[in-house]
Amino acid sequence: MVHLDFHPSGRHFLQIPGPSPVPDRILRAMSYPTIDHRGPEFGALGRKVLAGIKEIFKTRQPVIIYPASGTGAWEAALTNTLSPGDRVLMFETGHFATLWKKMAEALGLRPEFLGLPGIEGWRRGVQADMIEARLREDSGHVIRAVCVVHNETSTGVTSDIAAVRRAIDAAGHPALLLVDTISGLGSADYRHDEWGVDVTVSGSQKGLMLPPGISFNALSPRAIAASQNARLPRAFWGWDEIIEANKNGYWPYTPNTNLLYGLSEALDMILGEGLEQVFARHQRLAEATRRAVRAWGLEIQCADPAVYSPVLTGVMMPDGVDADAVRKLIYERFDMSLGQALGKMRGRMFRIGHLGDCNDLTLMATLAGCEMGLKLAGVPLAGSGVAAAMASLAEHADKPVLKAAA
Amino acid sequence: MVHLDFHPSGRHFLQIPGPSPVPDRILRAMSYPTIDHRGPEFGALGRKVLAGIKEIFKTRQPVIIYPASGTGAWEAALTNTLSPGDRVLMFETGHFATLWKKMAEALGLRPEFLGLPGIEGWRRGVQADMIEARLREDSGHVIRAVCVVHNETSTGVTSDIAAVRRAIDAAGHPALLLVDTISGLGSADYRHDEWGVDVTVSGSQKGLMLPPGISFNALSPRAIAASQNARLPRAFWGWDEIIEANKNGYWPYTPNTNLLYGLSEALDMILGEGLEQVFARHQRLAEATRRAVRAWGLEIQCADPAVYSPVLTGVMMPDGVDADAVRKLIYERFDMSLGQALGKMRGRMFRIGHLGDCNDLTLMATLAGCEMGLKLAGVPLAGSGVAAAMASLAEHADKPVLKAAA
Amino acid sequence: MVHLDFHPSGRHFLQIPGPSPVPDRILRAMSYPTIDHRGPEFGALGRKVLAGIKEIFKTRQPVIIYPASGTGAWEAALTNTLSPGDRVLMFETGHFATLWKKMAEALGLRPEFLGLPGIEGWRRGVQADMIEARLREDSGHVIRAVCVVHNETSTGVTSDIAAVRRAIDAAGHPALLLVDTISGLGSADYRHDEWGVDVTVSGSQKGLMLPPGISFNALSPRAIAASQNARLPRAFWGWDEIIEANKNGYWPYTPNTNLLYGLSEALDMILGEGLEQVFARHQRLAEATRRAVRAWGLEIQCADPAVYSPVLTGVMMPDGVDADAVRKLIYERFDMSLGQALGKMRGRMFRIGHLGDCNDLTLMATLAGCEMGLKLAGVPLAGSGVAAAMASLAEHADKPVLKAAA
Amino acid sequence: MVHLDFHPSGRHFLQIPGPSPVPDRILRAMSYPTIDHRGPEFGALGRKVLAGIKEIFKTRQPVIIYPASGTGAWEAALTNTLSPGDRVLMFETGHFATLWKKMAEALGLRPEFLGLPGIEGWRRGVQADMIEARLREDSGHVIRAVCVVHNETSTGVTSDIAAVRRAIDAAGHPALLLVDTISGLGSADYRHDEWGVDVTVSGSQKGLMLPPGISFNALSPRAIAASQNARLPRAFWGWDEIIEANKNGYWPYTPNTNLLYGLSEALDMILGEGLEQVFARHQRLAEATRRAVRAWGLEIQCADPAVYSPVLTGVMMPDGVDADAVRKLIYERFDMSLGQALGKMRGRMFRIGHLGDCNDLTLMATLAGCEMGLKLAGVPLAGSGVAAAMASLAEHADKPVLKAAA
Repeated sequence: MVHLDFHPSGRHFLQIPGPSPVPDRILRAMSYPTIDHRGPEFGALGRKVLAGIKEIFKTRQPVIIYPASGTGAWEAALTNTLSPGDRVLMFETGHFATLWKKMAEALGLRPEFLGLPGIEGWRRGVQADMIEARLREDSGHVIRAVCVVHNETSTGVTSDIAAVRRAIDAAGHPALLLVDTISGLGSADYRHDEWGVDVTVSGSQKGLMLPPGISFNALSPRAIAASQNARLPRAFWGWDEIIEANKNGYWPYTPNTNLLYGLSEALDMILGEGLEQVFARHQRLAEATRRAVRAWGLEIQCADPAVYSPVLTGVMMPDGVDADAVRKLIYERFDMSLGQALGKMRGRMFRIGHLGDCNDLTLMATLAGCEMGLKLAGVPLAGSGVAAAMASLAEHADKPVLKAAA
Repeated sequence: MVHLDFHPSGRHFLQIPGPSPVPDRILRAMSYPTIDHRGPEFGALGRKVLAGIKEIFKTRQPVIIYPASGTGAWEAALTNTLSPGDRVLMFETGHFATLWKKMAEALGLRPEFLGLPGIEGWRRGVQADMIEARLREDSGHVIRAVCVVHNETSTGVTSDIAAVRRAIDAAGHPALLLVDTISGLGSADYRHDEWGVDVTVSGSQKGLMLPPGISFNALSPRAIAASQNARLPRAFWGWDEIIEANKNGYWPYTPNTNLLYGLSEALDMILGEGLEQVFARHQRLAEATRRAVRAWGLEIQCADPAVYSPVLTGVMMPDGVDADAVRKLIYERFDMSLGQALGKMRGRMFRIGHLGDCNDLTLMATLAGCEMGLKLAGVPLAGSGVAAAMASLAEHADKPVLKAAA
Repeated sequence: MVHLDFHPSGRHFLQIPGPSPVPDRILRAMSYPTIDHRGPEFGALGRKVLAGIKEIFKTRQPVIIYPASGTGAWEAALTNTLSPGDRVLMFETGHFATLWKKMAEALGLRPEFLGLPGIEGWRRGVQADMIEARLREDSGHVIRAVCVVHNETSTGVTSDIAAVRRAIDAAGHPALLLVDTISGLGSADYRHDEWGVDVTVSGSQKGLMLPPGISFNALSPRAIAASQNARLPRAFWGWDEIIEANKNGYWPYTPNTNLLYGLSEALDMILGEGLEQVFARHQRLAEATRRAVRAWGLEIQCADPAVYSPVLTGVMMPDGVDADAVRKLIYERFDMSLGQALGKMRGRMFRIGHLGDCNDLTLMATLAGCEMGLKLAGVPLAGSGVAAAMASLAEHADKPVLKAAA
Repeated sequence: MVHLDFHPSGRHFLQIPGPSPVPDRILRAMSYPTIDHRGPEFGALGRKVLAGIKEIFKTRQPVIIYPASGTGAWEAALTNTLSPGDRVLMFETGHFATLWKKMAEALGLRPEFLGLPGIEGWRRGVQADMIEARLREDSGHVIRAVCVVHNETSTGVTSDIAAVRRAIDAAGHPALLLVDTISGLGSADYRHDEWGVDVTVSGSQKGLMLPPGISFNALSPRAIAASQNARLPRAFWGWDEIIEANKNGYWPYTPNTNLLYGLSEALDMILGEGLEQVFARHQRLAEATRRAVRAWGLEIQCADPAVYSPVLTGVMMPDGVDADAVRKLIYERFDMSLGQALGKMRGRMFRIGHLGDCNDLTLMATLAGCEMGLKLAGVPLAGSGVAAAMASLAEHADKPVLKAAA
């Protein structure tokens, strides 16, 4: 018998870069009774979440909500816009960019994988100039799409999407711009329309604070036009029928009702706090985390301060230290989960998630757990990251998060 | 502002043939804290649900659990086993068989759609002899798969899957057998291995009593072998990586953790009650429902008593009665949702769901709501279906459902 | 190991006259995080529930909310207004009136117990003329209080409280009027101010749809004045400090925060539906129940139609039938709990609760369970109560409970 | 409209010394459906919690569970054992000892209040020698009971109960020993039988991790004997009927079913962790907190290290600092509630709760919030309490709290 409701005393600290902790408000909303997905109340729910999610993507175009996890939305972005054998330009920013490229291959596309050499590419975001140069070479416009990851969950590095759009435009190239912000949406500033993105892919289990299980494609008119001619087979992922049914707040097949309840609540929480306030909070927590890492004398995975992620911070271990052994010690001794290094970085770093339903004191608990754990694991530390983080947070003394009731 | 947690006094009766009402036990399990899907507890959860779901399918082969709704699992069954242009033999049993066929076309397959004429095909299950005859004609073995629906949610008609297997074998044909039991699993007897099914497709929101959002492919060794050569593009739905990761209880991409908690609880409930007891309960409730329909003097949609569905009952309206108007009256006056007629039957019947977390008294409430609603709608009734149903249930007087604690 | 979360398939029908089923909305509200009962948010909660509960009692005077069950509020009503040895006039309407009288004795008061002979008193409400006659005799005004039960939970008989007030006034007697409406509040019309009640006692687990655990004293200026001189020892129950602290929404000792969350939600539900609509719904369900009992050929415990309870109906068994054996059969076979007969009626009747979060179809399930159970138990029935109840409910065809969303 | 489900981003830290945060497991258990309190399942629940609670009190004697908050259990202890005008010896250890003494007066007892002068008594526990001396003077045995508080919630000082028992015995005095451990039970070691306590009073909302609403009297044979002759009026609080009904797991009046579900879960959690492990965890967290206070250069309210509370720590402010202003700043800026100073200490200290469902990282968050808040409030700190607490917790490196699943 597996004991699922397993809680040692006190709360587990789930500080991985997603799935992020689901707030009680959302768990409660998810327990509303399942209703008839063809009945009248459902339409009202559908219309609400379809309108609200546009605000999060900062778009006026349709946003598709899939009853599937984020990996599926990657596939949807590709199959709706491309045809077998199409060339796509992708950029290696980390593990997830690599997986998306593998998916493109599996689907019969021909991805070209740009990137910096070695692990350097995993420490810096997309290099827009490399994309521009490559597109200028492609005078025949064989490349049909540029695919980049906005927030690399495997590294804690973001990419400048507006710069990618400028690069494509500067090259006078008609390629579509497809962007994955699965772990960025709702945590890092993102502007689908303003940045000229054609398809944005995202998921529920990060900044939206939901369990995994729903995912998104935000579209552009050019993307919709492209879908008319795209010949990769698709049915479940097909945009057309969904856009049509969504007009009244319904779906062509059974939607994920209880997760949509959760999405509705998440939208109330995020838009109630204010999207810009949410971003500022993530920046405050991320900055405090980085100060802690520096105070410990450890290296931040992201090597370019211009693209530090507000969602997570990758912490590199000194040579000879097994990051997974440190994580295991922290897990067993302090009941906290940190993110494992993936792919090329396996064993060499760990990831601290500070996204979603996170606040100053939860972050302090997290950093204290890291500091105590690193010491217990014998990692020599230059100083107290916890002290540095407290100093950083104290600089925001003018920002009350709560107002005493009148 | 949409008020989602909308409850007039008393409980809403959700008597559609799925999504079925989610029991409190499952809602509570779904609110367990989300955990690290790469951490040690997750593996234990994964192994448990992967083992348990095999018992429900009555198989020893792998069962794939997708973080996607049932329509996706249809697509998965096709894309993992077939190649572009492949011929598949499908059988028109109702709206969902029709949708599956449309999906096959959209994916670039060439389905052939057998069936009885007019609405007759929507009132009887699969005709195995027609399948056998067609396969015998196909001496070149061009047909790669036979696709049938086990329990047609749109009609309340089941199909004899063992007979289809016998038909294929009698024809000496190598086609794979793909079966949709999205609305049958956990409610109607189903035997993946014994019946020689190659891929069984199912979902969470019916007999498993979960919200929509996870779906299944149960496999056979032949299906796995076919997937090695199948050339329809696939990534998200690909079996290989999932089977590999599942060996330790994990998934290659983010699984639907909170719904897996729910699945774990559902397995405890169903296997705790006993699968055969669950089937017997569904048969008891379905029989009482049919007696009610007959007592009202109305026609049961399913015209062949051998294949009455234990999951739902389609009730045909007399000529001139708009079934949707009756449903609307019952919804507004008695706070009960009944299933709408779909496709060819639109407006001509309604569907009573009696599946999942349903018991004798909930059924009586349902039938009383139907009877009162039908009368208020001016539908002439021959007699009291409620009385007939009570008489039917009383025949099971020897079956206590609860034992007083010692 | 006791398995508390024990659910056979489908929902248990808890049709006792309280505790009544707690709606999901209230259970969810009760799971809000416990807050500092001296902090600013708490005051807002306190002020809301203290204002809202007055609307339910129809009073402008203070209502005390105790973190204790209803029996405690009985004690509070007595100890705050009376002194050792005081004479009080009580009226035997059933088991709970009898228990209140025993409590008065235990506390050192001298109750005088009026009533009709035999079980006749348990089938009719308070006889106001008997009270008037007795008070007229008490020319020395030795009697300090008249104590009556508004809705006798043990019998399904209500009492005319306005008539009791008129009786006291007609006698020109200064006795306080203390009324127990523990099971009536929020289900049966009740008017604390208009009826001139001095202390009304109530609880949470009936019409308010909460779990047991909070209870009430609604006060009058005369009751407050009496409390200044009352000499029964009291501390926990003392009104003074509570009234003082309540002015700002707080309590002098730790309040029952999570149940107050539930109370807040219950107030939203009841006042949102409308108090008069709630009463009308209870009357509709009670009338349908009585028609069922009559159709069965059984006797309703309440012998005076003027005082039928809208909360519960007592059903008398024919001679020789053990009501508890019938209840046990229904419990085990149909997973429904009915109320046991208490005190003088033990074994001779059972009680059907139709209060709180109950609606037409839940009532039909309940009556179907009774009818099937009575038959299985061998009780001869004259006809179908279920049919009679459906006919009764159908008379309210013009009362939609739900409106389809626009 | 009051918005109760009010959550700014991230979790509120409720670090008052009770009500303590209610774990999700307990909230979920409290949402099990309310059942018939006279039905068979209820008896099983009742027997389980009645047996389990004895283990927590370390007693083989009856423990009464009241559906009322802790203040009521104080009253119960007095009214069941004493008679009007009885003399009781009480000891001033803080605000709650003072309130209990006021209650004794209100109930018509004649308490004598021993204590140290000024606030000195609020910084040290009970002085057993003073009790012994006073009892020796009472050669006529007029004093009927000695009442002491085991863990003073207002100060963070415990008292040596075994020493009080020895003092009574040394004086050869027959007085009963009544002990309040409302905030100690389940957090601080407590031994009802071994320490010879006659009535122990406790509540649910502290170490038991439940919401307020149930409370306890643990009895001794002498206490039960005393109750036969005690003449304070009582009914709701009377032990006799409850003990009788409890034999089968029932109560004489409606129990607090949903809180009993919570109690059952709390017992599973505490006894599952192990009572001694729970105590050790509290000691570890308390020691880390005290090291933090000392590192800040602030004074711990408890002046006697032998009686430091494992439940909470009182932190005294330097002269001129308004402790409530500090608390308000921390509440608004860091979303954390700390305990207000009460009575004589108003405004001079604040209380940090580290009880119940608390662990190392939650404590670190708490101390970080205090440290940042104190600095922002301008309180000069000698050094980093956070650093000191981390050093203290690191000394327990050998105590994993979680084991990775095999």
